[in-house]
Order: sequence, then structure tokens, then C-alpha cells
Amino acid sequence: MALAIAESERVRGTTSPNPPVGCVVLDEHGRPVGFGGTQPPGGPHAEVMALKEAGTRARGGTAVVTLEPCSHFGRTPPCTEALIEAGVKHVIHAVSDPNPDAGGGAAQLERAGITVTSGLLADQVGNGPLRAWLHFARTGRPHVTWKYAASLDGRIAAQDGTSQWISSETSRKEVHAMRAKLDAIIVGTNTVKKDDPALTARDDDGMPLPRQPLPVVMGMSDLPDGARLRHTALHLRTHDPDEVLSALAARGVVDVLLEGGSTVAGAFLRAGRIDRVLAYIAPAILGDGPAAILGAGVSTITDAVRLTVQDVTMSGPDLRISAVPQT
Amino acid sequence: MALAIAESERVRGTTSPNPPVGCVVLDEHGRPVGFGGTQPPGGPHAEVMALKEAGTRARGGTAVVTLEPCSHFGRTPPCTEALIEAGVKHVIHAVSDPNPDAGGGAAQLERAGITVTSGLLADQVGNGPLRAWLHFARTGRPHVTWKYAASLDGRIAAQDGTSQWISSETSRKEVHAMRAKLDAIIVGTNTVKKDDPALTARDDDGMPLPRQPLPVVMGMSDLPDGARLRHTALHLRTHDPDEVLSALAARGVVDVLLEGGSTVAGAFLRAGRIDRVLAYIAPAILGDGPAAILGAGVSTITDAVRLTVQDVTMSGPDLRISAVPQT
Ligand SMILES: NC(=O)c1ccc[n+]([C@@H]2O[C@H](COP(=O)([O-])OP(=O)(O)OC[C@H]3O[C@@H](n4cnc5c(N)ncnc54)[C@H](OP(=O)(O)O)[C@@H]3O)[C@@H](O)[C@H]2O)c1
Ligand SMILES: NC(=O)c1ccc[n+]([C@@H]2O[C@H](COP(=O)([O-])OP(=O)(O)OC[C@H]3O[C@@H](n4cnc5c(N)ncnc54)[C@H](OP(=O)(O)O)[C@@H]3O)[C@@H](O)[C@H]2O)c1
Repeated sequence: MALAIAESERVRGTTSPNPPVGCVVLDEHGRPVGFGGTQPPGGPHAEVMALKEAGTRARGGTAVVTLEPCSHFGRTPPCTEALIEAGVKHVIHAVSDPNPDAGGGAAQLERAGITVTSGLLADQVGNGPLRAWLHFARTGRPHVTWKYAASLDGRIAAQDGTSQWISSETSRKEVHAMRAKLDAIIVGTNTVKKDDPALTARDDDGMPLPRQPLPVVMGMSDLPDGARLRHTALHLRTHDPDEVLSALAARGVVDVLLEGGSTVAGAFLRAGRIDRVLAYIAPAILGDGPAAILGAGVSTITDAVRLTVQDVTMSGPDLRISAVPQT
Repeated sequence: MALAIAESERVRGTTSPNPPVGCVVLDEHGRPVGFGGTQPPGGPHAEVMALKEAGTRARGGTAVVTLEPCSHFGRTPPCTEALIEAGVKHVIHAVSDPNPDAGGGAAQLERAGITVTSGLLADQVGNGPLRAWLHFARTGRPHVTWKYAASLDGRIAAQDGTSQWISSETSRKEVHAMRAKLDAIIVGTNTVKKDDPALTARDDDGMPLPRQPLPVVMGMSDLPDGARLRHTALHLRTHDPDEVLSALAARGVVDVLLEGGSTVAGAFLRAGRIDRVLAYIAPAILGDGPAAILGAGVSTITDAVRLTVQDVTMSGPDLRISAVPQT
């Protein structure tokens, strides 16, 4: 399953609105003989890719896949058929398909005499490569990760507005790599005015990566002449996070990064539309300057939006904290 | 040395202005036969305590001690003499004594034919139980730990001023245990007005611990009638951190906890008088409310006060981050 997860990570960011699934086919002796990840929309699914590589060695073997194989005709024929035809004896998947159309794959495989095991590393997959897609499948809304870089005292810029750079080079490189795996990045009009960001995903040498997320700006005002996002971004003239999310869902966007500023972050939190917080906390104190988030709709301590920390790692000198709202 | 460090931790908070030293005496076969920690001022030092327990078994043995043994007559006779008299063959210490009066202990032991090894776990001791005292010995100023509890977005209270409780019960208990090991706790007059804290160290059942730090309030205004600190605290009518620190040094205070609020924290940071930051970060978002620190004297990003993270641990659901200013 670890190999299947690696396959899914490899294609993450290229499959929306389809899930980034990974599959490994083992021959009858348990040796890995085929690897595959979901291809871009319209292309073959992970299982089909892995079976193709395995060829006849799949017969009597096992398919390990991060998501329950689909059983419906979409733009591609169902993966269950391909697995049955290939003569696989055992299918192991991490997460069951929440989608009523695609679901039922496990039952169909069992009817064909294939042993099906489900739930292996389900948490790791469900909170990892498939988290955004599962959220989308359940709610119809893209998954929103609010990412920010702040000082230990919670400032995203100094008193004079300068913010380059609060976080370390290591953290900034990590963010660029992450951007390449996401479908869209949202900022508010004021971040465009203040920082003129490009919101591109670049490699360690500053060169644009092949896959770029859709830049989205929300707010009523026009973007300044000459702003880097002026001709590249989708500009949505609204203050309503849900309007933004439906416009993005309609475009097949599943996995969104909210990059601020504080006003827009507050609007999303108030609306209950932040599904994960990713904080890069630099070990520095500013003592003045704008806060990471404003107007989250909390007025007293008992109304605080409580999170559960999922993961804390060091990113160079910075702390990287990943947390999800408690339900 | 780990045992000697444990001895020093046991007496931490009871020895100022003397260092909380720990000592373990091993017999000639390397078996621990005597343990000791520095007694309250005027009482015997760690080495003497450990030698007393070891008795004649110290002859031909080794003394492991967190600080270089003193060689001068203070309120107690020099420890070097006690070690020589006991017939110890080997002395191992972690940190050398920076104090010109007490220093020279190692040389004196060597002159008496004792092998001296220094530097064992020096970092762990120097950043641990002896950190505050070493700072005091070098600078003449008490060591200041700025401790605060904030939300992930850096707020120490909600919009309406409520702050009970941002951090978890686990964190609050940890702070009470820590208070019992410190000499003094400083707050500003406004924290007294807003929170009416007692600044006592209490056990898990809320009962006062035997050892209590000196509560200190700084600021010009009178404390409100009925404030819990009104008759217990040392009230220093000044805004100058250095005046506070000299008044405390004169009282034999070595290790200080600065517990806020934001104004007083800013004043200490601006004056370069924060020697360690201890942040309890609760996984919660407030989005409005007072910041942890105000007016640190930083106006632009390149002037940020950069820290080095020493330690990150979980304290219940909270993150506990210990960091020291970069020099
Ligand atoms: N360190 C970091 O991670 C990071 C990341 C991003 C930004 N920043 C900093 O954040 C600062 C900008 O923050 P900001 O809060 O001023 O800007 P912002 O959130 O980027 O944009 C705010 C603007 O967006 C529009 N808007 C969109 N939705 C809204 C809503 N629901 N409610 C109200 N207004 C809405 C409004 O402008 P209209 O009048 O156009 O509607 C509003 O003025 C800059 O200093 C930037 O450097 C830091
Ligand atoms: N979560 C936590 O860890 C934590 C801890 C403590 C406090 N708090 C919160 O912090 C808030 C209080 O913060 P605060 O900043 O208002 O109060 P503060 O720092 O406790 O007190 C400020 C007052 O102290 C005096 N002062 C002393 N030195 C000063 C200096 N160098 N410069 C200016 N004034 C100085 C001034 O009053 P005079 O007029 O008397 O001189 C000033 O108004 C409360 O809401 C409290 O709940 C939170």
C-alpha cells in the first residue's frame, strides 16, 4: 500500500475532478509487477495503468489500490471489469468510494469470485492524497487548506507591511512544491495590491513547474494595472466564500489553497469553509503588524474555533503545523 | 551525570542566589553511594551533601557534579577541600564556573592529585538547570523567560478580553509546576486589573505548593482595592525593565518568569531583556483579540527578532515551544 500511496502522490494535482489514485499489481508470488496512477481526466485510471504494465503476470495476483475500484461507465470503462478480465485473485483497497455512482465496486469484484480486503492504511490515504477528493465527493465543495506564514506572535507582516520573508527558504520551497499539487489558489484583492504575487509554482531554481494551479482573486475592486495576476487570474467579484467555491467546483477544482490575506481568511473561517490549517510559524517576533486572520466571528473565548493538530514538523528553522477543525 | 542533573532539578527554585547544583558520588567500583543537591542559601553545597551520604565509601571514588566545585570561602567552606579530604580520585563536572571568586576549583583539585574531567553534558546542564544562574553570573541580571499562552493566530485573549482558558489543563498544570521552580513572576498593572491573578504555584488539586515565587507587578498605577496581589506582590513603580531586574537581583532573584501582558512583554523585548521565550500555542483560532506582544521595537521585516527553537513538545493538545533569541 505504501507503494500505491507513492503512485497516488506522483499524480496528485493532475487528476481533478477525478481522485489521484495509486495502484500496484503483485504477481501470484507477491512481487510488484505493475505500477499506475490516475491519468488526467479522460485518460485511464490507476488500476488500468498498473494492469497494463503487469500484463499476463497479473493473473492469479493481487491489486493494491488506494481507492475502491470504480464499477461504472464514465469517460472510461469500469476498473472492476479490467481487474476481473486480468484474472486478479485479490483486491486490497484503502478507502471505500463514497460516490453512489462509482460505488459498489467491491461487491461486483466479490461476485466475480475475487477476494476483497478494505481499510488498509485508510487513515493515511483518507487524510493524505485522497483527503480533498473525499471531501469533495461528500460535500460537493472543493477542500480548502488555509496556508499562512507568520511569526511566533502571529503576525504575517511587519508594522510597515513588509513580509518578505517571514518564513525560511526551505518553507517557501515547500510551498511551491505544494502549489504544483493543487488545483487553485485564492487570495483577496488587497493581497494583490500589496504584494503583487504571481501565485505560480516554481522549482528550486525559480523556474515554473509544468503543472500550475489556477490563481483566483476574490473581491470587488479592479486589480491594479500591471498586477501580475491581472491577466492570469480568475477574478470573482464577490465576498462570499461559497460563491467562490461553487464557481471553482463547476470548473472541476477539488483541492484549493487559501493564501490570504487576513480578511479573506476570516471570511472563510466564519463561513466554516476552512477544512485544514497549514501554518508555517517562523521563530521570530514582530510585536506589531497585521495578524494572520481577522474577523473569524469569535467574540468570546468559549467560541474559539478549536482545531486538532495532525502533524508538527520542522521546515528548516520554521515550525510547520497542520491542523483540522474539530467537528 | 544524568543522576546529578536529576539531583539539581530536585532543588531548583530553592537555592538562589546560589546555583542549583546536583552531585553523585561513586565508590571506587563505580557504584553510586551518595546523592546531593545544593541546600538553601547558607546550607551545604551539593558535593558536601553527596559526600556525607557516601561517607568513607567516597575514598578512591568519583564525584560527578553539574558545576565545577567551588574553591572559595563563602558562607560555607570550599567544596574542593571537602572532595580532597574525602579522598576522591576523579571529579567529573559539566559546566565550568564563570565566577572569578569561585572559579579555579578544577586547578585546585588537580594540584591535589585529583583527575578532573569537564564538559560532560555541558549543553544539557547549561541550557537546563544552570541556565538562569550562568546567565546571572555572567551578566549580573536575572534570567528572564517570557511565557505566554496564545491561540495559533497569536491572540492571548478573545475580542471581549476573556482568556480563561486558551490553553489546556495539562499546560496550566505544567506552568504551576514551573512557577514553583522560579524565583519571581512579573506582570504589568493592567494584567492585575483585568485578570486579578494570584501568581501562586499550585499542585494538581489547586493547593499551594510549599515553595512560592515572589510576585512582582510593574507600572505606575495603584493596584485595585481587593486585588489578590495587592498585599502579596512587590509593586515596582517603573516602566524600565532594567530597574525591575536590578531590584530583583538585589533580592537574590536569579530566575524570573515574565507572564505578560503584551505591553510589558514588548518593553522587555525592546530592551533586549528576554532570554528565553516559552510559548504555549493552543490549536484554536480567535481571529480577533489582543496580541501576545505589543511594541517590540520592530518596524520592518529585516529587524524581526529572530529566535532559535530549542524544543517543541506537545502539552496535552497544545504545542509548547521553547526558543532563545539569536545573538
Ligand atoms: N504571510 C502570509 O502568509 C501572507 C499571505 C497573504 C497576504 N499576506 C499579507 O496580508 C495583507 C493583506 O491582507 P488583507 O486582509 O488586507 O487583504 P486580503 O484578505 O487579501 O483582501 C481583502 C480584500 O478582499 C476583498 N474581500 C474579499 N472577500 C471579502 C470578504 N468576505 N469580506 C471583506 N472583504 C473581502 C475586499 O476588497 P474589495 O473592496 O476588493 O471587495 C477586501 O478589502 C498584506 O499585507 C499581505 O502582505 C500575508
Ligand atoms: N494568555 C496569557 O499568557 C496572558 C498573560 C498575561 C496577560 N494576559 C492578557 O493581557 C492583557 C493585558 O495586557 P496589557 O498589555 O494591557 O497589560 P500589561 O502589560 O500587564 O500592563 C500594562 C501596564 O503596565 C504598565 N507598564 C509597565 N511597564 C510599562 C512599559 N515599559 N511601558 C508601558 N507601560 C508599562 C502600564 O501601566 P501604568 O499606567 O500602571 O504604568 C501599562 O498600562 C489582559 O487581557 C490579560 O488577560 C494574557
